Amino acid sequence: MPVGTQGTVKAVPQDTLESLGVEIILGNTYHLYLRPGHEAIRRMGGLHRFISWPRAILTDSGGFQVFSLNSLRKVTADGVQFRSHLDGSSHFFTPEHSIDVQIALGADIIMAFDECTEYPASRDRAEESLHLTMAWARRSLDHFRAHRHKVPWTDPKGCCIQCFGIVQGGMYRDLRRQCAERLVEMDFDGYAIGGLSVGEPRELTLEMISEVLPLLPKNKPRYVMGVGYPDEIEQYARLGVDMMDCVLPTRAARHALLFTSEGRLNIKNKQFAEDQSPPDPACQCPVCRRYSRAYLRHLMNAGEPLSATLNSIHNLAYYLAIMSRVRSSLESEPATPASDR
Amino acid sequence: MPVGTQGTVKAVPQDTLESLGVEIILGNTYHLYLRPGHEAIRRMGGLHRFISWPRAILTDSGGFQVFSLNSLRKVTADGVQFRSHLDGSSHFFTPEHSIDVQIALGADIIMAFDECTEYPASRDRAEESLHLTMAWARRSLDHFRAHRHKVPWTDPKGCCIQCFGIVQGGMYRDLRRQCAERLVEMDFDGYAIGGLSVGEPRELTLEMISEVLPLLPKNKPRYVMGVGYPDEIEQYARLGVDMMDCVLPTRAARHALLFTSEGRLNIKNKQFAEDQSPPDPACQCPVCRRYSRAYLRHLMNAGEPLSATLNSIHNLAYYLAIMSRVRSSLESEPATPASDR
Repeated sequence: MPVGTQGTVKAVPQDTLESLGVEIILGNTYHLYLRPGHEAIRRMGGLHRFISWPRAILTDSGGFQVFSLNSLRKVTADGVQFRSHLDGSSHFFTPEHSIDVQIALGADIIMAFDECTEYPASRDRAEESLHLTMAWARRSLDHFRAHRHKVPWTDPKGCCIQCFGIVQGGMYRDLRRQCAERLVEMDFDGYAIGGLSVGEPRELTLEMISEVLPLLPKNKPRYVMGVGYPDEIEQYARLGVDMMDCVLPTRAARHALLFTSEGRLNIKNKQFAEDQSPPDPACQCPVCRRYSRAYLRHLMNAGEPLSATLNSIHNLAYYLAIMSRVRSSLESEPATPASDR
Repeated sequence: MPVGTQGTVKAVPQDTLESLGVEIILGNTYHLYLRPGHEAIRRMGGLHRFISWPRAILTDSGGFQVFSLNSLRKVTADGVQFRSHLDGSSHFFTPEHSIDVQIALGADIIMAFDECTEYPASRDRAEESLHLTMAWARRSLDHFRAHRHKVPWTDPKGCCIQCFGIVQGGMYRDLRRQCAERLVEMDFDGYAIGGLSVGEPRELTLEMISEVLPLLPKNKPRYVMGVGYPDEIEQYARLGVDMMDCVLPTRAARHALLFTSEGRLNIKNKQFAEDQSPPDPACQCPVCRRYSRAYLRHLMNAGEPLSATLNSIHNLAYYLAIMSRVRSSLESEPATPASDR
């Protein structure tokens, strides 16, 4: 899932995303709540209509962003007090409020409000944080069930909107297990594994995913949040992960980093000054079919806005092609669900 | 002609320009000479190939940009010494060098090297400047004729590349006339009227155009440089002007100004916060067909790069639609060439 923090996948028009085959994008509740505001978006018929994106949208709970504010926030059992990074204004998010905001945005998939445990965290800290996350998961789900019909589009029973729970537990396998089991009892529509890719070594990320995945129902979406590099997403998808989101393809693109079948290219490098080959000779994306490395280098060096657009289109296409290949190979292989591995 | 200063119409991909019906873009010789350099572009097969733009390109002579540097340049009879705005390095442009650089870029239409007289300018100053421009026009054309075959693509006789002369003369009708007559004697492939839209009142711009236009051959392109607002370009086109270029549609777009059939909109204004109508209800461009004013306002306020892209696409489409309407109405009207008015 490409990330569209503020209701736009940075620098890429919606019709381009469609032609790349993007089926779902992520919106950030924290950002959209602050600007333009969830009530404004509700009045305009929801996020899909506001940004003109008829395909699926998932919104996060705002939790991760709020916890990233560090000095600007204060956590209590009831919720989180935080200050806006835009104007310093004070706000209070509870699980109920996060769900209300997400229902107002009207995404197809909304996320339970959780606390993302920092890395490293002591066992005591991870356990305490986990209890908060599990209590908030319960409250999120109850509130979702009572208010899901309040989406801004015509869906009288609220049957189209789904709510996912988020497995936390720091880097402690038993805490992760405990959380997964409790969430599965609650019967969410899908399950995410959060609190990963927060600075831990990659073996640990893999260990946590491998621990949790078999505990999650195979007939519901399993989503690892905030990953990752191209080889990572392929690895996790082959383990049985159904969904991932990451700013990496678009953020890296804006910083001159292209992912290609020949490895990572820093397109600013002088070696590309007169390189007329496509960014990735093995790629069929519209950028690789039309433009050269030399031109992309020139755009980047000249500070041209087209640079971010073309680099992002290529990186997104590269990520989507990986997932497409994985899907094809899983379809042609005998089924070996993650829980059997 | 949309302006693509550094080999890109800012924030708009080439395939979008094509689908908008753009037939020709302008590249700035001064910028491309400094970065990535005309010799690099020559080695890569010329500007068309470098930027992947198979339609027409016109390059300016670099004169206007160099004269805009003010304190960084020094003019002699032979040419102009100037310092790069990028790194302060020293460069010397003569008419011959400007033509060489433009031939290396391989545009379809290249411009004679001229001095753009500042506004206001005394008669003495305008006269002196005009003599320089006329001497340089002669040298530009001679050099062009001797070297036109050196384009970086296969064109053994250089028969596809054209050179236009530029009529200067400040705001003095007789000087303008004198310049136009001399240039026509030299027999350029087309004629531009330069040194307008440099701060003078609009009546004066119109007066100069009306003075010069009847003196230029009707069977060759007549080009007014650096104009203008939507109503201006319509007015000049109806007088018989065939070509115009301006950064206004794209530059204004990046600063939140949209041109519409309902007048100019500052899309940052609060009044558009929940305005779900298209930017211009009468416009058929891809932006007006898909997005709302509220969304464009949000993108601009949130500092999103998509803002520049969508605003630019609309403004370019608006300009192109004007020219398209003018062409249709001229075709259906009895011919009344400017020289008969």
